[in-house]
Amino acid sequence: MVKVGIINVTGYAGAELARLLYLHPEAQMACVTGRSAAGKALSQVFPHLWPVDMTVVEELDGVDFAFSALPHAASAEAVAPLVRRGLPVVDISADFRLTDATEYQRWYGVEHPAPDLLPQAVYGLPELHRAAVREARLVANPGCYPTGALLALAPAARAGIIEPDVIIDAKSGVSGAGRSLGLVYHYAEANESVSAYALGGHRHLPEIVQELTRLWPDSAPPRVTFQPHLIPMTRGILTTCYAPLADGGLPAGEGAKAAVRELYEEAYRGEPFVRVAPEPPQTKHTWGNNLCLVYPTVDVRAGRLVVVSCIDNLVKGAAGQAIQNMNLMLGFPETTGLDQPAVYP
Amino acid sequence: MVKVGIINVTGYAGAELARLLYLHPEAQMACVTGRSAAGKALSQVFPHLWPVDMTVVEELDGVDFAFSALPHAASAEAVAPLVRRGLPVVDISADFRLTDATEYQRWYGVEHPAPDLLPQAVYGLPELHRAAVREARLVANPGCYPTGALLALAPAARAGIIEPDVIIDAKSGVSGAGRSLGLVYHYAEANESVSAYALGGHRHLPEIVQELTRLWPDSAPPRVTFQPHLIPMTRGILTTCYAPLADGGLPAGEGAKAAVRELYEEAYRGEPFVRVAPEPPQTKHTWGNNLCLVYPTVDVRAGRLVVVSCIDNLVKGAAGQAIQNMNLMLGFPETTGLDQPAVYP
Amino acid sequence: MVKVGIINVTGYAGAELARLLYLHPEAQMACVTGRSAAGKALSQVFPHLWPVDMTVVEELDGVDFAFSALPHAASAEAVAPLVRRGLPVVDISADFRLTDATEYQRWYGVEHPAPDLLPQAVYGLPELHRAAVREARLVANPGCYPTGALLALAPAARAGIIEPDVIIDAKSGVSGAGRSLGLVYHYAEANESVSAYALGGHRHLPEIVQELTRLWPDSAPPRVTFQPHLIPMTRGILTTCYAPLADGGLPAGEGAKAAVRELYEEAYRGEPFVRVAPEPPQTKHTWGNNLCLVYPTVDVRAGRLVVVSCIDNLVKGAAGQAIQNMNLMLGFPETTGLDQPAVYP
Amino acid sequence: MVKVGIINVTGYAGAELARLLYLHPEAQMACVTGRSAAGKALSQVFPHLWPVDMTVVEELDGVDFAFSALPHAASAEAVAPLVRRGLPVVDISADFRLTDATEYQRWYGVEHPAPDLLPQAVYGLPELHRAAVREARLVANPGCYPTGALLALAPAARAGIIEPDVIIDAKSGVSGAGRSLGLVYHYAEANESVSAYALGGHRHLPEIVQELTRLWPDSAPPRVTFQPHLIPMTRGILTTCYAPLADGGLPAGEGAKAAVRELYEEAYRGEPFVRVAPEPPQTKHTWGNNLCLVYPTVDVRAGRLVVVSCIDNLVKGAAGQAIQNMNLMLGFPETTGLDQPAVYP
Repeated sequence: MVKVGIINVTGYAGAELARLLYLHPEAQMACVTGRSAAGKALSQVFPHLWPVDMTVVEELDGVDFAFSALPHAASAEAVAPLVRRGLPVVDISADFRLTDATEYQRWYGVEHPAPDLLPQAVYGLPELHRAAVREARLVANPGCYPTGALLALAPAARAGIIEPDVIIDAKSGVSGAGRSLGLVYHYAEANESVSAYALGGHRHLPEIVQELTRLWPDSAPPRVTFQPHLIPMTRGILTTCYAPLADGGLPAGEGAKAAVRELYEEAYRGEPFVRVAPEPPQTKHTWGNNLCLVYPTVDVRAGRLVVVSCIDNLVKGAAGQAIQNMNLMLGFPETTGLDQPAVYP
Repeated sequence: MVKVGIINVTGYAGAELARLLYLHPEAQMACVTGRSAAGKALSQVFPHLWPVDMTVVEELDGVDFAFSALPHAASAEAVAPLVRRGLPVVDISADFRLTDATEYQRWYGVEHPAPDLLPQAVYGLPELHRAAVREARLVANPGCYPTGALLALAPAARAGIIEPDVIIDAKSGVSGAGRSLGLVYHYAEANESVSAYALGGHRHLPEIVQELTRLWPDSAPPRVTFQPHLIPMTRGILTTCYAPLADGGLPAGEGAKAAVRELYEEAYRGEPFVRVAPEPPQTKHTWGNNLCLVYPTVDVRAGRLVVVSCIDNLVKGAAGQAIQNMNLMLGFPETTGLDQPAVYP
Repeated sequence: MVKVGIINVTGYAGAELARLLYLHPEAQMACVTGRSAAGKALSQVFPHLWPVDMTVVEELDGVDFAFSALPHAASAEAVAPLVRRGLPVVDISADFRLTDATEYQRWYGVEHPAPDLLPQAVYGLPELHRAAVREARLVANPGCYPTGALLALAPAARAGIIEPDVIIDAKSGVSGAGRSLGLVYHYAEANESVSAYALGGHRHLPEIVQELTRLWPDSAPPRVTFQPHLIPMTRGILTTCYAPLADGGLPAGEGAKAAVRELYEEAYRGEPFVRVAPEPPQTKHTWGNNLCLVYPTVDVRAGRLVVVSCIDNLVKGAAGQAIQNMNLMLGFPETTGLDQPAVYP
Repeated sequence: MVKVGIINVTGYAGAELARLLYLHPEAQMACVTGRSAAGKALSQVFPHLWPVDMTVVEELDGVDFAFSALPHAASAEAVAPLVRRGLPVVDISADFRLTDATEYQRWYGVEHPAPDLLPQAVYGLPELHRAAVREARLVANPGCYPTGALLALAPAARAGIIEPDVIIDAKSGVSGAGRSLGLVYHYAEANESVSAYALGGHRHLPEIVQELTRLWPDSAPPRVTFQPHLIPMTRGILTTCYAPLADGGLPAGEGAKAAVRELYEEAYRGEPFVRVAPEPPQTKHTWGNNLCLVYPTVDVRAGRLVVVSCIDNLVKGAAGQAIQNMNLMLGFPETTGLDQPAVYP
């Protein structure tokens, strides 16, 4: 059993890590930290974790592996000394996702606390960077939106069947905004309503652009519009991606639909956590598990690729993917502790 | 008082017409029909209409004005004789929205029951066709999705600031699917879930294309992808529209945002039911009233117009707009009976 | 037109007052106050009130009638000088509901700011105290829970058909908790969950006991258990009341059901805002309007009265009832501005 | 590995059995049946079960243990031959819960299909009948409401601290009504609404009465009012129980609260799936797992016991409890496959 720690267990990502680690046969949750909750029983902070008998502490100690669920900047600061002394770490914050510290500062408004570690950080989307994750000591867990968007677009981008001109329209449940209070997340405000937000540019955009740029056959950054929306549900992200078909990439007419489907099935064959759905999927079919459902099709009239993906923002979009990365880093079978149906209905 | 009838009061659009007509100072609900509910008190079918003392009947009778809330095809059949004998009618179904009977047959799978009436039918989006509505005897009430999409795109299309290459990503509450039962609208299936549907093409697409084509300075039909989504709420549609900026249409850089905002404010100045929102809007702010909130902006990085609109699908997207059309047809002030704040929270 | 003011428009009750006053033909909203929002346009604070062109100010001025939507204690302080100089006031807070200042202090933990005004305050449940409301200068608007509970129990209590031994199990939407943030009202916490709260005693209990005591034929205070619950919806309270049948009050057996129904119909005949529902009601049928639906029946096996009532907590449970009281105080027909169907679905 | 079958996998209880059995280390789902879905892949019927590679068949075959998730009457007919030939069975329907076939016929309106099996059937609430379940061949899985109500009331009833005069007010999510369509479960009808139903008597009442009668020190049937409510969420039941304190059962005054708490803690010490919650619980803390949270307290003013319990209606209220029963019948540790935190938020 590997002794695992969670830095800042008190948010939703931290709590979900604790839930999933409880089910993991090879990892033992040995230490959980949290500033405000220090000294309290974990089951007092989170009654749904009642079978876990642990006390929240202030400082991480006695672990062989660490997850950080701290906010950005604070996370890099906490994680840097651990990485430097050789502890393998998955950082759920945004701190090590962007390879360029200047870009980081532009979007997050703070100087990067540990730019020297950026070169060794691996962007932990296993479907794109599995080999690198296996070798990594520091994995940057992708954002929830980039996970859904990249898994929806990667096969098409890599195959060159679309123009580098992409629109990503994402619909997220409210838990994506975390456990901190805010009027827009107040029940009576968020319920029975939908809104678009971050119209000036969301922090997950540079992450999406960075990874799409790596995927594209030619190296110019694609033109990406990413627009997130808040919808009245607790968990789940559905992402709808649109891009014009590249000339000659797919057969003309209705045949394009089968061709794109085949391309995606081929691309994701053998992937344990991506499934090309036979029917347009709904987020409920990924509720609570690490699955990403992808549904590619073509708007034949407009000559456009349309891909829909569904994930649970707290699992494949956060804690589940973090454990998937841990499994790879520690040499466990990738699905260890994560092989579960969704909770439906 | 004008005596008004509702054909097929038993669905959500019919019930909403009854609610709004109850508040209308110049119209008196004189007759409501419904096959299955005939003989029952309206307040038995719809307890929220308890102050209305009426019995549902089989056949329309004794009215000066009629709304039809029948399904397509059935509606044209019921409405045609009324129109032929001179009764002014607003048809909430799709039957008279498309000017081309062949296109109608392609999308609805039935021969048009009254193609001879198509030339006199007016597409009842007052913000685009007010003068024609005033003169019309037969008004085709727009679909809920086209209402949100067209009000979002019209000023930009008309001004020629965007390429005729549009993506419309719409998110609708479940009442848009009507009162007929279906597994996807079963509470336990629809709640805590979001899905894309009609990926092969939604029936509201030809309607959107027809109206956008009329708006565009040049007359070739624009390339339109329209993708609807079902989200877990009862009422409301938020529509997010994307289109590449046309060369020279707007100032470069951040200035484009203010310019597009000004364009929209100018376009909708004086419109009683369209408001250019100062902040990104949410559907809750139109809950139960006839308002359309529009928020135009520019994704400067990608050179794209992004416009968000919000409506209540049962009011501005159906019954409210129908009454707005009636007001115009009968010479009442346009806002009569419709001047209400939204119900919030 | 009477000039009306709202003290503290910035909470949900205040906003709902503004919405309803906009629809009132005899009252003109002339002044709205709010500490934090002072200087802002009302439509900026509450976009759903966009047709209202008013600025929030700090101090009430220039009105002939005032509503206070301040929290308890603050409300009495603000309202006392107004009442003393003769302005008619409806206070939505709890400050003038309890006739006994000691009881007030026990439950609210503060000394009553204006105990001298208590004797002239009238408990503004028009169905119980209509005549007194008409004459009052200071009306204490009932709490949302007492409104639902008292309308459910009053006819039975008054008729003496039940023992003075009552259980009131209430289920409220989240808007009842107001607009102030709190973890239990955070969307991700409140959604898909139900909980009981205030198990040690809710502040609405003494109010219920006070009014039930007045109703009961004999004057000893009844034994009342009142248990509120929070359920995942925005508006609405459903109250289920249970009490043992008194000997000889109703016919034995199944006949008791019709008898109790008749009793309630008789009791509420002519009441404009209480309807004895023919079928078990749902809160949705009162969404947004001032109606209270009451459904009385008998559990014949157990010999118990069971009464269900439904209200919208922000309308009949707060702002709507406040306007109903204003109508009475100012001599308008009681339903002025309130005669609306519910918004359904 | 025991080969396990599910008769009628196509409802929510069946689907939840399949989900939980997938996680069970000692049981292998070997056969699933379903009339309408026969011939289809299970993952086609239920996309959330995609990792399960099975085809739905018409007839049960090749299993060592069977669950029936058929409706009542059909279930007894299907199960009787299996039981007669010695197969151990957990029946999730109501068919073997009532010991008295006449009572069954009164409530279910059909003659019992296999009254000869009633004497050997064990009511499968392990917390009350663990020893008998271990020896049983035929276990009647309790109803969802009785599970919540009995676990809330059993310690108090057994200890004689309350009068046999009980009110059970239960609030259930919509999945409790199953997967069959109905207007009241239509999303737009059920959302943002709460209602009481079955006011004439719910079928779970005789089951509750039967088990409470067994518990009570004296043998007269208690006077029970059971009132269920439908609330807008997918999963979960919160049950609030009320009963007058018996004389001399608990210390007077505030001390009663600690005493009743101690009594419950003692009663449930060592129970793997019942937890006496330190704070008033919410259903979300049992979402997706087999836990029952119980919170007992006393309304000291009214001299009444108040107990709140929370379960997931599809887990402890159906499929999870069925597996708990299977574990007991087959000699596995009781928590096998069920030891999971709830899914929160």
